[in-house]
Amino acid sequence: MPAPAARRSPTEQQRLEKALIEIFEHRIRFNETLGLKVISPDPAAPTLRFEMRESLVGHYASGRLHGGVISATLDAMGGFAIMVALAEKHADETLEQVGHRFGRVGTIDLRVDYLRQGLGKHFVASAEVMRLGGRVAATQMRLANDEGTLIATAAAAYMIS
Amino acid sequence: MPAPAARRSPTEQQRLEKALIEIFEHRIRFNETLGLKVISPDPAAPTLRFEMRESLVGHYASGRLHGGVISATLDAMGGFAIMVALAEKHADETLEQVGHRFGRVGTIDLRVDYLRQGLGKHFVASAEVMRLGGRVAATQMRLANDEGTLIATAAAAYMIS
Amino acid sequence: MPAPAARRSPTEQQRLEKALIEIFEHRIRFNETLGLKVISPDPAAPTLRFEMRESLVGHYASGRLHGGVISATLDAMGGFAIMVALAEKHADETLEQVGHRFGRVGTIDLRVDYLRQGLGKHFVASAEVMRLGGRVAATQMRLANDEGTLIATAAAAYMIS
Amino acid sequence: MPAPAARRSPTEQQRLEKALIEIFEHRIRFNETLGLKVISPDPAAPTLRFEMRESLVGHYASGRLHGGVISATLDAMGGFAIMVALAEKHADETLEQVGHRFGRVGTIDLRVDYLRQGLGKHFVASAEVMRLGGRVAATQMRLANDEGTLIATAAAAYMIS
Repeated sequence: MPAPAARRSPTEQQRLEKALIEIFEHRIRFNETLGLKVISPDPAAPTLRFEMRESLVGHYASGRLHGGVISATLDAMGGFAIMVALAEKHADETLEQVGHRFGRVGTIDLRVDYLRQGLGKHFVASAEVMRLGGRVAATQMRLANDEGTLIATAAAAYMIS
Repeated sequence: MPAPAARRSPTEQQRLEKALIEIFEHRIRFNETLGLKVISPDPAAPTLRFEMRESLVGHYASGRLHGGVISATLDAMGGFAIMVALAEKHADETLEQVGHRFGRVGTIDLRVDYLRQGLGKHFVASAEVMRLGGRVAATQMRLANDEGTLIATAAAAYMIS
Repeated sequence: MPAPAARRSPTEQQRLEKALIEIFEHRIRFNETLGLKVISPDPAAPTLRFEMRESLVGHYASGRLHGGVISATLDAMGGFAIMVALAEKHADETLEQVGHRFGRVGTIDLRVDYLRQGLGKHFVASAEVMRLGGRVAATQMRLANDEGTLIATAAAAYMIS
Repeated sequence: MPAPAARRSPTEQQRLEKALIEIFEHRIRFNETLGLKVISPDPAAPTLRFEMRESLVGHYASGRLHGGVISATLDAMGGFAIMVALAEKHADETLEQVGHRFGRVGTIDLRVDYLRQGLGKHFVASAEVMRLGGRVAATQMRLANDEGTLIATAAAAYMIS
């Protein structure tokens, strides 16, 4: 039996979270286009947020979020949940090793249920990892507005390694 | 039995298509953020196109489309297919009457299957209306790159009136 | 302003639940083929149950539920959740009026996520109504085995009236 | 470069198809419950068929197929399409080796779009494999009645090896 692998030190974990947020908010360019910000990288309850802006609107007269903003945000939310779950599962790995895993995550499919109109000043996305297998993972996601009204739910499957 | 309603004249139809393209490409703000352009408003084979741009990329090092761009484009594609199908079905209605119908279309849900990496210089989306009922409609969508490689497929359901 | 409608009496409500269970378990023939039994018709937490049987197995050597049993059960579960939600929403209506609504419920679409192998002695399905609009409703469903292990989740959309 | 592997002889291919049909129609018990019969095991256009029977009906008064029969059949159809596609892709493998691959196929998720009422004397399911990767596969499925009316479409993702 191998000796249990050493978990990351608090300093290393902090460095990893900082790097992960930098990647997610800026290097993933379209997330920047959407204005996504990480509220919490906690694997138990990862959350994102973005502000309503004119460039995200469906028909200009309605002032509602474009459905595509909702699906894109929930897609990104699921991916972020997978990233933090992988970082926790492989807590004995270095930032570089975990980064390598991130690069190999692939979305298999996504389903979005649009429940209510996308009206609000800002929006909060959250996710739950339903299964984290060796090859495939599944997540469920939610989008609510600034008043806590549920706007949409989603589910996605991912290839992981 | 009422007299059969007069169909739009060629001039009216042209005016309607022009208005529809103006709404779709510009007034639906997020479509402009994505850079979506109407290639064909033909109800039998509606198609859209957009150019690869850095703001649409997933991880900056990969150069691949963000999954959210794919889902957002296919969401918009399905909506556009519904719009042109409604305009054809209600060919006896004025631009204003049809426009009123557009405002009442609501996406119920969307599923996207990501088949291959989003690599290419530009991308072409197409759609087929599978059912156009009195209250609910269903579409299937496809996204291919500039070499014709199928990147993703999708299906969506809509409330219509 | 009309006077508030009278809610069903406890006796009428009991009669309605009994009729609803009779319809669900027996008159909906394929539910009988699956062996579905109503555990609770409570709109807040409707639940079903069925026993493992050889006729429900995928490959005979595996002893696991066929994926189609899982999707069929979750489809039936979502429909049952809509039925009890409609009966509660229209608590001023007679059994006949509510029965008429049941006959007009139509599933628009269904997505099932298969999380773990369908192994167990019996299985319990549950559902939550995410939205009950005037024309469209949405549900989320779960299937667990006799040990409480989550086997599958699902989401569906329905036309209602 | 290795020598190209020998493909199965016509006799071996026939034996494989016969075994595959035996497994699909009988050893997969719930397929027998549904009454599914293989019409064609051709990987280019695999098709199934089943007869309307009272045990497959939704509400007894309607005479329509239960939604769960539709989802279960399309689930089985997608799995069958994967089986014949794997048998063709690995045409250099023995029946035993291919059989081992079948046992490891797992459905990740399924989406069904219900387009029209399930009315008919018999029903025909067909499928197309959209992608057959090394680890994940995707299919699209259709169900039509004896008059060729499209009843439902579906899409599914599978883990393969």
